Amino acid sequence: MSQLSNLQINGDRLWDSLMEMAKIGPGVAGGNNRQTLTDEDGEGRHLFKRWCEEAGLEMGLDTMGNMFARREGTDPDALPVYVGSHLDTQPTGGKYDGVLGVLGALELVRTLNDLNIKTKHPIVVTNWTNEEGTRFAPAMLSSGVFAGVHEEEWAKARVDSKGKSFGEELKRIGWEGDEPVGARKMKAFFELHIEQGPILEDEDLDIGVVTHGQGLYWLQVTLTGKESHTGSTPMPKRRNAGLGMARVTELVHETAMDYQPNAVGAIGHVEVYPNSRNIIPGKCVFTVDIRSPSKETLETMKMRIEDGIETIVDAMDISAEVEVVGHFDPVTFDENCVKAVRDAAERLGYSHTNIVSGAGHDACWINRVAPTAMVMCPCVDGLSHNEAEEISKEWATAGANVLMHAVVETAGVVE
Amino acid sequence: MSQLSNLQINGDRLWDSLMEMAKIGPGVAGGNNRQTLTDEDGEGRHLFKRWCEEAGLEMGLDTMGNMFARREGTDPDALPVYVGSHLDTQPTGGKYDGVLGVLGALELVRTLNDLNIKTKHPIVVTNWTNEEGTRFAPAMLSSGVFAGVHEEEWAKARVDSKGKSFGEELKRIGWEGDEPVGARKMKAFFELHIEQGPILEDEDLDIGVVTHGQGLYWLQVTLTGKESHTGSTPMPKRRNAGLGMARVTELVHETAMDYQPNAVGAIGHVEVYPNSRNIIPGKCVFTVDIRSPSKETLETMKMRIEDGIETIVDAMDISAEVEVVGHFDPVTFDENCVKAVRDAAERLGYSHTNIVSGAGHDACWINRVAPTAMVMCPCVDGLSHNEAEEISKEWATAGANVLMHAVVETAGVVE
Repeated sequence: MSQLSNLQINGDRLWDSLMEMAKIGPGVAGGNNRQTLTDEDGEGRHLFKRWCEEAGLEMGLDTMGNMFARREGTDPDALPVYVGSHLDTQPTGGKYDGVLGVLGALELVRTLNDLNIKTKHPIVVTNWTNEEGTRFAPAMLSSGVFAGVHEEEWAKARVDSKGKSFGEELKRIGWEGDEPVGARKMKAFFELHIEQGPILEDEDLDIGVVTHGQGLYWLQVTLTGKESHTGSTPMPKRRNAGLGMARVTELVHETAMDYQPNAVGAIGHVEVYPNSRNIIPGKCVFTVDIRSPSKETLETMKMRIEDGIETIVDAMDISAEVEVVGHFDPVTFDENCVKAVRDAAERLGYSHTNIVSGAGHDACWINRVAPTAMVMCPCVDGLSHNEAEEISKEWATAGANVLMHAVVETAGVVE
Repeated sequence: MSQLSNLQINGDRLWDSLMEMAKIGPGVAGGNNRQTLTDEDGEGRHLFKRWCEEAGLEMGLDTMGNMFARREGTDPDALPVYVGSHLDTQPTGGKYDGVLGVLGALELVRTLNDLNIKTKHPIVVTNWTNEEGTRFAPAMLSSGVFAGVHEEEWAKARVDSKGKSFGEELKRIGWEGDEPVGARKMKAFFELHIEQGPILEDEDLDIGVVTHGQGLYWLQVTLTGKESHTGSTPMPKRRNAGLGMARVTELVHETAMDYQPNAVGAIGHVEVYPNSRNIIPGKCVFTVDIRSPSKETLETMKMRIEDGIETIVDAMDISAEVEVVGHFDPVTFDENCVKAVRDAAERLGYSHTNIVSGAGHDACWINRVAPTAMVMCPCVDGLSHNEAEEISKEWATAGANVLMHAVVETAGVVE
């Protein structure tokens, strides 16, 4: 496609669409609160649908509310290339997490329309329902059902904190389709997403070529010692669950440091009982988060941490329970799709690096049922899941340009 | 006083009084909620006053609501021996913390009455207002004003969580007296209290002869790192305030272990921000509690911890603020009063040991203005500040017997 080397999306139009979508479900601090299956999510879907129809696309809708806007190919029987992400946000989310991937996909179609470029394979712009998982756990729920990771019935029975189910709420906002979920076959799936980490910005790079998604374990650890007075309990008689938690925190850190450069490990959520200045903690509950792009490394880390916890509590006369409350295996994205992304960045003259996705994305599930890859662009200070999330128009444009070239190359331009 | 060696309080009567007082402000789980300056506190005071009057005592009341029930001596000009503790409880407190010290004092007077024993020095049974400090911080408020540690005006302006002041509430329940606080001079002060720790029970001892009160520092530490995603932030780019807190927890433990047998140190209260499974803590606020009976040791521990925190945060590119939010110097109780307690235990044939009070008590403040000592008795499992707080009638009896002998010896029996 040498004649298309200079093909560029319209960055201003992409940006205007991002700002227009951000008006729906505005946050309190400049970001967005457009949680899945709320009225605001419904309104966002209507706007997206209208834009798709204005671009000549035909909207499909499955029983999980996933939206599929199709631009026909010259060979209607050829498997479509899918491209998209999600429009739902965190309760105090940003304007770009997910949304850039959907509207970047729409923008590339608008550009192809402008230039009257035809592809052999159809292109389907996609919005996956409930990627965030904040309202209805877990995250990536509907792409998970699409990929056969979850049962549809189970997914629809997920309830929010007010006891409303996913299924009821999907019906209520009017976005439950008839099409069986997961029935579509894909030639490939591409997703553009902000990095949500600091690497690209720190290294002044335009594009992350995502080669892997990290596997994850969430281990919920409960340490039980004995509540007692900080003043009147001699040191040798203490059974301090808080000190145990401190030692496990260090263990998790050391374990991750032993598997650099890619492994990570931390404890983000802790509950201390009774959490009083003059009472030694009798119980601590906390979640260990470990990730690695290598399944073998991830399993080894988990084993080391479980064994280490046992050693720590045995020495302190406290007890531990460890429960797996989250897990997915590492993802290796499709070699050809990844190459299409890297070639696109190269062709367009963008600086780029291979990168591992630390967070989960719809692409991680879709990779199980279709050749998949992801494009990442920087975000300011690595900040995401936060109303202060920010990117530049240039970064968004570069990301969408790479997305377009990868998609168009895969879909095949018809001369 | 060899002729009185077998003098014993009436253990059944003491126990009945404890159970009768516990009916006022019952807790939800078998303990008590008779917080200071509530209606229940007022009701408890009326019962105590009635019992004192039935025992022929004359009640005095100062402007902080401290109650002083006097049994005349044969020399009315001799300085009285004061003996007591507090009747207020924690919100979910036990039946014995404080109450045993007041009703044990009353019981010893009843016993002297029964046997028509006269003392040269008057004996004054005392109830200090607001020892617990849960409703109106700080603890030991009114004994503190009595001893000149706090200004009365400042103390009366302390407010509870509903905005009501100590001064208003003292008036409201009708227990503000006319007598200037701190005007009384004492020959000595004795306080009986449950241990609130595990030593006596574990070592199967009847009596703790309290030689010192531990000094204390509460250091509120704020560590500030940077909130970031647990998945997409590489280990070298993390500024993990939670890991910093873990290291400070270990530092506090190690520092206390270096000053055994008496020093203690722990972190009981922690707040982690934003406290989410997949976000590296950007901020942690927690309170270091360190105690020692030696002022020099306590100051050295504080310095080591402050220096250690600086070293820890410098290595992690996070920052720390350390604020002293609680402090008192160690207390060395009066040699003669301590000897009177030890001699009493010895004379009565009780097993005993020297002990350091880990918690603060009214006696710690009164020691500044009068020769003071404390008697401790065991409590089950070291448990206190808890509705499940428990002691046996035998332990209470032994404690009150030792208290009586120490008081009577100091007050001087008139043959």
